[in-house]
Amino acid sequence: MKSSNTVWHHPQIDMSVREKILKQKSVLLWFTGLSGSGKSTLANAVEAKLAEKHYATYLLDGDNIRHGLDGDLGFSQKDRKENIRRVGELATLFVDAGLIVLTAFISPFRGDRQEIRKLLPNGKFIEIFTDCPVETCEKRDVKGLYQKARRGEITDFTGVSSPYETPVNPEISVNTKRSDLEECVDKIIKYLEKHKIIEVS
Amino acid sequence: MKSSNTVWHHPQIDMSVREKILKQKSVLLWFTGLSGSGKSTLANAVEAKLAEKHYATYLLDGDNIRHGLDGDLGFSQKDRKENIRRVGELATLFVDAGLIVLTAFISPFRGDRQEIRKLLPNGKFIEIFTDCPVETCEKRDVKGLYQKARRGEITDFTGVSSPYETPVNPEISVNTKRSDLEECVDKIIKYLEKHKIIEVS
Repeated sequence: MKSSNTVWHHPQIDMSVREKILKQKSVLLWFTGLSGSGKSTLANAVEAKLAEKHYATYLLDGDNIRHGLDGDLGFSQKDRKENIRRVGELATLFVDAGLIVLTAFISPFRGDRQEIRKLLPNGKFIEIFTDCPVETCEKRDVKGLYQKARRGEITDFTGVSSPYETPVNPEISVNTKRSDLEECVDKIIKYLEKHKIIEVS
Repeated sequence: MKSSNTVWHHPQIDMSVREKILKQKSVLLWFTGLSGSGKSTLANAVEAKLAEKHYATYLLDGDNIRHGLDGDLGFSQKDRKENIRRVGELATLFVDAGLIVLTAFISPFRGDRQEIRKLLPNGKFIEIFTDCPVETCEKRDVKGLYQKARRGEITDFTGVSSPYETPVNPEISVNTKRSDLEECVDKIIKYLEKHKIIEVS
C-alpha cells in the first residue's frame, strides 16, 4: 500500500468487539447423542427460540456441512474423526465471530469432544447430552439407518457396531424419551438465562 | 423426542431471517491479489470501518484458517486448491449466517474464484482485486517470501514460479501502488453504499 501522509489507526476487531456490536455473548451449544435421539430437532427448536428473542445464531449440522466443507470426506472411522475435528474448528470460528452456535452431530467419543472444549475460552463450550436409550432411538429409526446397520450395510454405526461414550459431566442433559420437545427447549433456555448467556425475558 | 400434546410450530431460521435479526445484508468481500499487494491490511481496515458503523463482520485469512481448519493441508498445488475450496465453503456458511464476510487469500486462479462465486446467491460475491505490480510487491516483501521463492526455497510461488490470473471483471479494483490505504478503504465503502449493502452514513 502506498504510505499515507496521515497516520490512520484502526482497532483490531476481535471476539469481544464483535460481541459488543451484536450485544450478546457467543457460546457453542454442542449437542451430542445417538442417531435418532433428537439432536437436530432440538437444536433447530432452540435456534428458533433464540431467533425469536433476536439473538444472532448459527446452526451447523450434517445438512450444511457434509456436502460442502466436508465434501472430500467419507464415512470411515478416520474420516468421521476428521469430520468432527473440522466441525469443532469451524464452530470455534463462529464463536469468534460473536454468534451463538449450535451443532448437532453424534460425536460419540469423549476425547474428540474434549479436544473441541479445549479450543474455546472457559465457559463457552456447553455440552448438551440428548439422552435416549438406543432401543428407543432404534424404534424411531426415522432415517432407516439402524435397520441398515443391523443388516451390516453400514459399518461402525454408533450404538450398534461402534460405541457411544456418554458425557461424564455435561453442562446440560435432556432426556428426550421422557420429556417432550418444549420441555427440553425450556431446560436449555433456562440454563442460558441462569448463566447470563442470554437475558431473562 | 416424546411427542407433545401441544403442536408447536417454529419457523425455519434461514439467511433472510438472520439478515433481519442482524439488520444488515450479508455479502462476501473476496480480496484477491499477489502476496504483498495489501489484501490483509486492506481487509482488516475495511472490517474496522464496518465495525465502527456497527455492522456484524468476520474476516477469514491465513491467520485463523491455516492452523486450524486447514491444519491437515500443506502447500502443494493440490493442497492450495483444496485450501481455497474450503475457504469458499466456509465463507458461504458465514454469509448464510448473515454476516459481512471478508477473505484475504491470494487465490490466483480464475476458475477457483468462479467456483466460489457460483456457491452464492447473485450479488453476494464481491470480488476485490488488490492490483499492484509484482515488482512493487517483491520490493516490499514484508514476509521475505519473494526472496525465498527466488532462491527456490518455495516452489509454485504466485508471481514468481506460478501464474496469477488477473480478475477479468471484478466488482471492485483498487490500485494499492498508487493509492494509500484510506483511499482504498473509501472506494470499497462507497461501493457498498452505492449498491445498498450498507447504509450511507
